[in-house]
Amino acid sequence: MKHMKTLLKNAKILSMKDDQIREGHIVITDNRISEIGPQVDVNAKYDKVIDCEGNLLMPGFKDAHTHSAMTFLRSKADDSKLQDWLFNEIFPREANLYKGCVYELGKVALLEYLTSGITGVIDQYFFPEEFEKACKEYGFRCVNLIMYDPDSRDKNTCLELIKCNEDKNSLVKAVIGLHSEYTPTDEMFKTTKELLDETNLPFYTHLSETAQEVDECLSRRNVRPMKFFDDLHFFDKGGAIFHGVYLDDNDMEIIKKRNVVVVSNPASNMKLASGVAEIKKLLSKGITVALGTDGPASNNALDMFREMYLVTGLQKLLLKDPVSIPAYEVLKMATVNGAKAMNLIDGDTLEVGKLADIIMIDLSRPSMQPINNIVNNIVYAGSKDCVKMTMINGKVLYYNNEFFVGENIKELYIRAQKITDELSVIKK
Amino acid sequence: MKHMKTLLKNAKILSMKDDQIREGHIVITDNRISEIGPQVDVNAKYDKVIDCEGNLLMPGFKDAHTHSAMTFLRSKADDSKLQDWLFNEIFPREANLYKGCVYELGKVALLEYLTSGITGVIDQYFFPEEFEKACKEYGFRCVNLIMYDPDSRDKNTCLELIKCNEDKNSLVKAVIGLHSEYTPTDEMFKTTKELLDETNLPFYTHLSETAQEVDECLSRRNVRPMKFFDDLHFFDKGGAIFHGVYLDDNDMEIIKKRNVVVVSNPASNMKLASGVAEIKKLLSKGITVALGTDGPASNNALDMFREMYLVTGLQKLLLKDPVSIPAYEVLKMATVNGAKAMNLIDGDTLEVGKLADIIMIDLSRPSMQPINNIVNNIVYAGSKDCVKMTMINGKVLYYNNEFFVGENIKELYIRAQKITDELSVIKK
Repeated sequence: MKHMKTLLKNAKILSMKDDQIREGHIVITDNRISEIGPQVDVNAKYDKVIDCEGNLLMPGFKDAHTHSAMTFLRSKADDSKLQDWLFNEIFPREANLYKGCVYELGKVALLEYLTSGITGVIDQYFFPEEFEKACKEYGFRCVNLIMYDPDSRDKNTCLELIKCNEDKNSLVKAVIGLHSEYTPTDEMFKTTKELLDETNLPFYTHLSETAQEVDECLSRRNVRPMKFFDDLHFFDKGGAIFHGVYLDDNDMEIIKKRNVVVVSNPASNMKLASGVAEIKKLLSKGITVALGTDGPASNNALDMFREMYLVTGLQKLLLKDPVSIPAYEVLKMATVNGAKAMNLIDGDTLEVGKLADIIMIDLSRPSMQPINNIVNNIVYAGSKDCVKMTMINGKVLYYNNEFFVGENIKELYIRAQKITDELSVIKK
Repeated sequence: MKHMKTLLKNAKILSMKDDQIREGHIVITDNRISEIGPQVDVNAKYDKVIDCEGNLLMPGFKDAHTHSAMTFLRSKADDSKLQDWLFNEIFPREANLYKGCVYELGKVALLEYLTSGITGVIDQYFFPEEFEKACKEYGFRCVNLIMYDPDSRDKNTCLELIKCNEDKNSLVKAVIGLHSEYTPTDEMFKTTKELLDETNLPFYTHLSETAQEVDECLSRRNVRPMKFFDDLHFFDKGGAIFHGVYLDDNDMEIIKKRNVVVVSNPASNMKLASGVAEIKKLLSKGITVALGTDGPASNNALDMFREMYLVTGLQKLLLKDPVSIPAYEVLKMATVNGAKAMNLIDGDTLEVGKLADIIMIDLSRPSMQPINNIVNNIVYAGSKDCVKMTMINGKVLYYNNEFFVGENIKELYIRAQKITDELSVIKK
């Protein structure tokens, strides 16, 4: 089989192994980095050459918590009370979902990820097999969170959906999860635990998103959500919790001991008035924090620049202290730590042998000028317009504001709009 | 004199006179809107025709508080305590400013405004005559805040700088202001008041940005900053206060009575941990709230999408209530209310006779899809990548990510970087 060799030349490179930015080039053979540094022979023969013109190459962002196909609910019910929003706006419309919706709606999200330099996501939603299909078609990397549900997905179907993990090179992987502590039945907890034990996979769930959730768990079970799951050994193989806004010291001790990643969703927690997670405290305890956008109904953007800016900014407000989390730590959350949450050990940094999930930051955008500190420019002043290229698995999927995903984008929008309009009618 | 006629055809139009979006076209004759609506003859003879392809036209954003030329301090001293930041990082470097710096550094900011759909600013900084020159060269609209200062700008020079107001069509206008209540000398208050009386201009100042500022004013003068200025009749002709984070009911009464605009700077107040302004309360009292980015040292972006998202989002956190400020109200702050703060009565909405300061929002960006609610999409999911065109005074200055300002951008960046590097050395 012929190998495809791509050269990215004349770049500044932020590998995320450390905070140094070095001039150099990157060679990609098929889907992995095969050479990196100033010594690369730029005059050798390559199948494709991209001149970076001094712009910055860095690992793609990882969105470690999202519900991609919720694009149909974007801007549908903003500015409403959480319970109203969930029970009167979101759930009734989600009940309308039918086969084929998630495939199209998920693609709209995939395009937005590409505009924000996001090269991989942990997705949690209905019809994960449809999202898998969309990701594979576009060439997008995803970890699908598979949830056992006696009404729609039996244990064998869950095990089928996890088989993608057998192919080491698969773009789509799968893990086991639950929605939360407060929605599953006892039987769902039991079967999910069996699935975890049989597959040896880590565990993922929404946890301690709101004060109300923690209070209700305490009154129902006399234990906080984190301890509830840990007592049942759900986190024995690690995993991640989504949101983690209300965590006490004991919760944090369990998280640390079980090597669980806290995926913070600052924009969603702000929009739904849930609160501000204690990120600085989590970091001081040596806990790994990653970032997620949550779904487009509660954000409403799928934009890692927004999350990076907010995760440090809101901490400054929370602690009434402008000295909060250094920009490089924030960039680690959005890349290396996200890869850890995804269990993507070969997709975290730019090094020989690692996956070619690479973005190019356009340093000629005015918000990136002048250059006092590139890392701080990205975290504090970056936005989607700074993303010049998004490459996943060695393939350029987005370049100079254009998509290369084998799709007529306008036609996709028409199909997604038709589905959106259909789903928006709430049946009585 | 031959008139220049430009047609913007096949658009959705949000005039901001109301919240309705209507299909139609806009004709611009020279620098003003001469026709608007579905009845426009698209086949008549025009000097220039732009097909909007169904995208949205709306009034440009107004950044009602900024210090543009502080681009040289972007990402220079993030994550530091306010007093350290101001006295050890910012002031010593600003003391290095020399003739010519503000002209080049201000241009870098102008480019960023264009990427964010900002068509006008109220600028407050050293060397306002240099910023005026940069704006006129690029074709950018600005209100320069002129501050009397015995060390650098005498009363006659202030009056000279205000003469631009005599030309009704001037892109650059000027108003009178002070830095704040806590920095000027008695003589500066006195002379500034004379200037206000002689020119009949409104008054502009930083006010109640931090709790410390209010406390110190109270202990020094036994009165809060707003009442201090009002007792001296500074606000008799209206004007605006910048930040306004710490305002009590009495302050708000004065603000309302004097028809003063509160210019909120949510990103800057977050980054410097100053706090969250009580926007919902201000609105409920019928006070006009506009938005500003503040300077790039304390934000670090110059991005109206960031401010719009934060001004409603932070309110939700502050009030622990996801029902905060409707998206259309936020869009009004960023456009109509900003124009009021700028005293730009003919630049607030899209109507016949109004200034052609118009932006085009690219509805084909994934974050703008699907379309449930365009206004909410812009406020909650918009970012710079959605700005397809920025037109000021009838001229297209930014289109499809390219600048049309008569400048070699790369050469500008080189000059701005050289100045930035020179200024960054703190002299002992």
